[in-house]
Amino acid sequence: MYFPDAIPQFRAYDPARVVRGKAMADHLRFAMCYWHTMRATGADPFGAPTMRREWEREADPLRRARDTMDAAFELMGKLGIKFWTFHDRDIAPEGETFAESVRNLEQLVRYAETKQKESGIRPLWGTANLFSNPRYMSGAATNPDPHVFAYAAAQVKHALEATHALGGAGYVFWGGREGYETLLNTEMQREREQYARFLRMAAEHAKSIGFKGQLYIEPKPKEPTVHQYDSDAEACLNFLREFGLLPLLKLNIETNHATLAGHTMVHELRVAREAGALGSIDANVGDELLGWDTDQFLIDERATTAIMLEVLRMGGFTTGGLNFDAKVRRQSVDPMDLVHAHMGSMDAFALGLVAAAAIVGDGKLDAIVRDRYVAWGGGIGMKVLAGEATLSDCEKYVLKAGEPAVRSGQQELIENLVAESVRSAV
Amino acid sequence: MYFPDAIPQFRAYDPARVVRGKAMADHLRFAMCYWHTMRATGADPFGAPTMRREWEREADPLRRARDTMDAAFELMGKLGIKFWTFHDRDIAPEGETFAESVRNLEQLVRYAETKQKESGIRPLWGTANLFSNPRYMSGAATNPDPHVFAYAAAQVKHALEATHALGGAGYVFWGGREGYETLLNTEMQREREQYARFLRMAAEHAKSIGFKGQLYIEPKPKEPTVHQYDSDAEACLNFLREFGLLPLLKLNIETNHATLAGHTMVHELRVAREAGALGSIDANVGDELLGWDTDQFLIDERATTAIMLEVLRMGGFTTGGLNFDAKVRRQSVDPMDLVHAHMGSMDAFALGLVAAAAIVGDGKLDAIVRDRYVAWGGGIGMKVLAGEATLSDCEKYVLKAGEPAVRSGQQELIENLVAESVRSAV
Amino acid sequence: MYFPDAIPQFRAYDPARVVRGKAMADHLRFAMCYWHTMRATGADPFGAPTMRREWEREADPLRRARDTMDAAFELMGKLGIKFWTFHDRDIAPEGETFAESVRNLEQLVRYAETKQKESGIRPLWGTANLFSNPRYMSGAATNPDPHVFAYAAAQVKHALEATHALGGAGYVFWGGREGYETLLNTEMQREREQYARFLRMAAEHAKSIGFKGQLYIEPKPKEPTVHQYDSDAEACLNFLREFGLLPLLKLNIETNHATLAGHTMVHELRVAREAGALGSIDANVGDELLGWDTDQFLIDERATTAIMLEVLRMGGFTTGGLNFDAKVRRQSVDPMDLVHAHMGSMDAFALGLVAAAAIVGDGKLDAIVRDRYVAWGGGIGMKVLAGEATLSDCEKYVLKAGEPAVRSGQQELIENLVAESVRSAV
Amino acid sequence: MYFPDAIPQFRAYDPARVVRGKAMADHLRFAMCYWHTMRATGADPFGAPTMRREWEREADPLRRARDTMDAAFELMGKLGIKFWTFHDRDIAPEGETFAESVRNLEQLVRYAETKQKESGIRPLWGTANLFSNPRYMSGAATNPDPHVFAYAAAQVKHALEATHALGGAGYVFWGGREGYETLLNTEMQREREQYARFLRMAAEHAKSIGFKGQLYIEPKPKEPTVHQYDSDAEACLNFLREFGLLPLLKLNIETNHATLAGHTMVHELRVAREAGALGSIDANVGDELLGWDTDQFLIDERATTAIMLEVLRMGGFTTGGLNFDAKVRRQSVDPMDLVHAHMGSMDAFALGLVAAAAIVGDGKLDAIVRDRYVAWGGGIGMKVLAGEATLSDCEKYVLKAGEPAVRSGQQELIENLVAESVRSAV
Repeated sequence: MYFPDAIPQFRAYDPARVVRGKAMADHLRFAMCYWHTMRATGADPFGAPTMRREWEREADPLRRARDTMDAAFELMGKLGIKFWTFHDRDIAPEGETFAESVRNLEQLVRYAETKQKESGIRPLWGTANLFSNPRYMSGAATNPDPHVFAYAAAQVKHALEATHALGGAGYVFWGGREGYETLLNTEMQREREQYARFLRMAAEHAKSIGFKGQLYIEPKPKEPTVHQYDSDAEACLNFLREFGLLPLLKLNIETNHATLAGHTMVHELRVAREAGALGSIDANVGDELLGWDTDQFLIDERATTAIMLEVLRMGGFTTGGLNFDAKVRRQSVDPMDLVHAHMGSMDAFALGLVAAAAIVGDGKLDAIVRDRYVAWGGGIGMKVLAGEATLSDCEKYVLKAGEPAVRSGQQELIENLVAESVRSAV
Repeated sequence: MYFPDAIPQFRAYDPARVVRGKAMADHLRFAMCYWHTMRATGADPFGAPTMRREWEREADPLRRARDTMDAAFELMGKLGIKFWTFHDRDIAPEGETFAESVRNLEQLVRYAETKQKESGIRPLWGTANLFSNPRYMSGAATNPDPHVFAYAAAQVKHALEATHALGGAGYVFWGGREGYETLLNTEMQREREQYARFLRMAAEHAKSIGFKGQLYIEPKPKEPTVHQYDSDAEACLNFLREFGLLPLLKLNIETNHATLAGHTMVHELRVAREAGALGSIDANVGDELLGWDTDQFLIDERATTAIMLEVLRMGGFTTGGLNFDAKVRRQSVDPMDLVHAHMGSMDAFALGLVAAAAIVGDGKLDAIVRDRYVAWGGGIGMKVLAGEATLSDCEKYVLKAGEPAVRSGQQELIENLVAESVRSAV
Repeated sequence: MYFPDAIPQFRAYDPARVVRGKAMADHLRFAMCYWHTMRATGADPFGAPTMRREWEREADPLRRARDTMDAAFELMGKLGIKFWTFHDRDIAPEGETFAESVRNLEQLVRYAETKQKESGIRPLWGTANLFSNPRYMSGAATNPDPHVFAYAAAQVKHALEATHALGGAGYVFWGGREGYETLLNTEMQREREQYARFLRMAAEHAKSIGFKGQLYIEPKPKEPTVHQYDSDAEACLNFLREFGLLPLLKLNIETNHATLAGHTMVHELRVAREAGALGSIDANVGDELLGWDTDQFLIDERATTAIMLEVLRMGGFTTGGLNFDAKVRRQSVDPMDLVHAHMGSMDAFALGLVAAAAIVGDGKLDAIVRDRYVAWGGGIGMKVLAGEATLSDCEKYVLKAGEPAVRSGQQELIENLVAESVRSAV
Repeated sequence: MYFPDAIPQFRAYDPARVVRGKAMADHLRFAMCYWHTMRATGADPFGAPTMRREWEREADPLRRARDTMDAAFELMGKLGIKFWTFHDRDIAPEGETFAESVRNLEQLVRYAETKQKESGIRPLWGTANLFSNPRYMSGAATNPDPHVFAYAAAQVKHALEATHALGGAGYVFWGGREGYETLLNTEMQREREQYARFLRMAAEHAKSIGFKGQLYIEPKPKEPTVHQYDSDAEACLNFLREFGLLPLLKLNIETNHATLAGHTMVHELRVAREAGALGSIDANVGDELLGWDTDQFLIDERATTAIMLEVLRMGGFTTGGLNFDAKVRRQSVDPMDLVHAHMGSMDAFALGLVAAAAIVGDGKLDAIVRDRYVAWGGGIGMKVLAGEATLSDCEKYVLKAGEPAVRSGQQELIENLVAESVRSAV
């Protein structure tokens, strides 16, 4: 046993509580992320690991990998989390050769199957780590060397198969090295074409093995590289449209990636949702005064309300969920810090769900917004939208109608309204 | 006469000097921008105007507008600049009514025709100011009120016609208010649809009047609003693709807008160029340590080299050019400051052109880059690109070929090479 | 009457409610700021005014100034705000000559005296506008021309006298032009010396007229200029220490200025408080994804809790208070938007006060922190602090004691604790 | 031999060339930095090491450390660099115990003495690594546990002694962990007092062993921690003044740290120089569009000119110099990439020195600036500076003199002037 038996009570999260006709657990679909929660060490660019986990003590890598999985399922069990997410190299050690890596992965997948059967937990999504090994330093799918492309493709093959074997609801591509350090030595369009080819090959393989999970790409503008091609939601959509991939992939949106791109999380969610491409969420938060991915647990119910409002407005998650792509701070070296971190965020999302449901439910906000656009329902507005008005028609209208009225956007009133809904949920 | 007769000599710019078979003036296609150079006052959010121009002394607005145009053509003549850019409201005062505004504009267009005939100068592009008047506070085409949409449409009609009358090589849409202050009161997708409709109506009008110039949209992420829909080159491309507008519009890329979006200018140029959508350039530079659009004159030949390299690689400008969307600092209150500012940047672009031509000409950089991707010309790479390889084929390749070699990206060598080319151009 | 009689009820703010032995109103000492609330027009760098206030209708500037003051006192009365803050040029129009400006100011000060007597409202602080007029474009006290210095000094003389006449509790210097556009034309140290001289002259004048209010300087790093000398709290303290001014001035800290400097508001408050120099607060918030001073009303009770915690820990305000240096958004053109904005922030600060009082009151957070540093109370720690240990003593200690233990910083636990306190206050 | 015999020729750097009466080598005092150049691996937060150095092949740590030192002196010899900088843990491996670490360090110091004797190379400065080991995760001198303070103190004792033994010209403190992750668990002022005590103890030890080198602190605002106390030059000066340490320490200023703090490098240099506290320079550059310390080699002669102008204006370096605190990019895995990187920057600083010398030499820029402030040499200006003028005197002056003249700051002219000087140096 790696975590204490008695963990604190949730303050707000109650998996069975019904909100808008669905249990909280089904609305929120929390997932524990393996790389941060089980494998993060506290190392940073200026410092060595600070966390010495009990489950990382064994010398034998495969034994250590199984211990780690035991700890993961113990923690998920204690927290009541029903999904997990993983990279291939996080659950199973990379071997000396590709074949050995495959064997290691298969061994751990079998081990995970047992753990899953006992617990009813399953993957929200799986993925392949195509960024840590030096072979990927100049890109995986976008590498100037097709040998590396092939290596990445082979790795994805097995990661997809592992996810499929474990009943994963989705599979994510995050292209941490798919970008450039300098445009001076880079043929960008050629690399983007390679990347599109790669994704199509992966989608074909997924289909060929009968994997029904959703495929996602995940926007992030930079870090580790100077620029990543999947820089934000619109860059991803542009790429998917350009290469005809929009039917095959949705987006997995992360708060800290949004803010690194200079956008709010809600902006990115809205962009994805309105394009019919919002799939899943990496639930975390960054520090907007720092320029790197701090991946903190989000415990602000104002922010979770805004997120859950977008989720409710797309009709809730189908394949996706809330993946805690977040890590405890480097000084938080105790296993209990992991417990506090997850519980704090789970409570905050529960509050956010309740508040968002209230906002949707009472309809006050929607009424204000509807009223704002009401004039488009008739007259010149309707003609314009129907494609029946020319610039000349517009001029004629203006010559008759004169100057438009100026009308308050009521931002402060609306913000107070939302703040009150959040407070009422507490 | 508003400017002294004797202005300094250029150090590097020589309009007739032939570079790669074309005169410098034809490569660079400099344009003077009316709003900053003629109409900027030095006002800022905390301060009143500091510049009291001789050409703004007359009390009668139309008289003042003609004086300003005299000054503009005098300055362009003295600097040897053959293009200009303008907003409708900058060359002619807004009237009490729409009809009066139209009459004012028409009067000044006639005046400009005379000035153009005398000088051989013509518009690089025209545009409509759809952001200053309070009627546009919540958007022009994207306004919640179709009355405002109609007003903007009517205004664009006349701005297009003015540009056409003056022989403009293009027309730019910059949507400074096409975005939102808060998503809470905004239906984003509805507004984006309005905007797409607006652009299509404008394109149809342009066609109907026989305007052959290129239409452009201009990316900028924020300022004045919190978020503008045309946030960066990829957001623009996504929008154009979504609404089938890519055949109709190209991009006008500005350095300071690129950096406000978190991108380098070269990144934005490359994105646009590789999508076949690079049209024209707003030549300026921002201060990356400040978070607003400082619109400074660019005098760094390292930066101009990088810009001209992208321009040369697309085969040079066709309709587009280098528009000095830049202003002298608030304390630079003398007319001669305008002269120094333009000359500094013209010299820097001349040096940049020479350096870029040398880089393209000697082929060293291209050879390094070509060599980097050489393996894609055969073997597994060629099969992948041809769509003939699966993930399983890739795995088979890797099982046989083993671990890829790690090869230097040579960034420092390449950067030194470029630095030397720039220095050689000086 | 400029505002409706019936305004909404506060949700949380109750001026008479006693918290830790003091009425809410006395803890919070809210001030309405004249320039934003009464005089802001909605103009921005790209757009004309959007707000047409009833109190700005009269053609005669002095009459308009009195109407504006009527509206200000009406609004403060309706909101139950007992303090106001003002610039000289905001309450009285600048005249053709300095003498006329003085007469205008004196006239409005007399008018304000009457309004104050009726209402019991008085200035939290006054100040002089040394940044809007073009004469200040290159600095006021730090101008290269001593003539401008003298002008600023004369203006401050009267602003101090006006503040004194109105019974102001303080006087603020904000040096929006005291900095540089480029170091190339700037003698920074010379300008800093001018500035120090200016502040000392002002302090001497304040003393000579019997003004007992606190003098403050206000940090802001940039905007309008590229760099302002009072860039952040530590830069201000460094300046005050260098010139022996620390006994004479405290700091007025603003949230949006803190974040523009790359700091959290709490950091700036802590720096000032621990230096004994925290005086007053400009209560607002910025948008960390935008690079300019958005001056929004703060309605997040998490942020107000953090602020009030620092205020409680310094023992509460003495001369200072919470000045709403915040403006409604450009599209919020109705007077009622001003009401909603102030009420939203007053409620949020009331909640923040209650939450902060609970945190201080239950002592849980303090106990954790005290425990963290407990070892400094004895042994080698005590010797070090007493100046009785050398590096060699430390080495001896380490050779004996070996490796220190690694101990969790418990950040997640603490953040949950604070979040719960905030929620309990709601 | 780790590097090829034949390295390229410098383009601009000529150590013996005399500029303003002093050899280039003596002006520039280049130093190679050990941690980046010899020990960096290419690891980043998302990836494993990419660089496999020949000098890191031996299994035995001490043998490997000696090989590394051989490579370092070979490289310095080939580049003609006469200074080096080092951390204790970079030249000698940390042992199991403190005592073993000390023995390792002493062994490598003896080895370095031999290498220095052969080559005439010596340390520009030494330092102790007080940030990598997990014991320092919550600070070294500012740790909540005095045991850690003692450990850091003991480590500095030996690092100082090592630097002294090697004839180092200085010693640097960089407090990468001296700050906080969250203010919620931090007593900032207590930690700042600990830090002041630490520096005083170090200064006393330096004196006691006869070390005559200059002590420096090095500003950096953040990374690795959320906030570091030595955040920028003014924060450092405030700290030094508060604790009476200004006579004991100067500043070591780094470009990338300046920009992370939101300042230009020239701003930080100017602040330090004008406070008499500019000691040495970490010569590198960051990427202002990225939010972390990229530590790139600076090859822009415009930037090096600005730096050398400040150096010339303080009369040149005494103890300090230009330390290449810069690393090759992660993909630059070849030893020759190190050669290209250093040479590119050495050439750029040579050009910058020549350009700066020309600017100082021809006096044009100085004349413009002197003229700008000329009025302070008499009249009211002189009285103000002499402390003989009151606000009332200023008012009298203004009532008589009226409105000051507005005069151009000539920024564009000046920037062109400097650009021309840089180009002339090429």
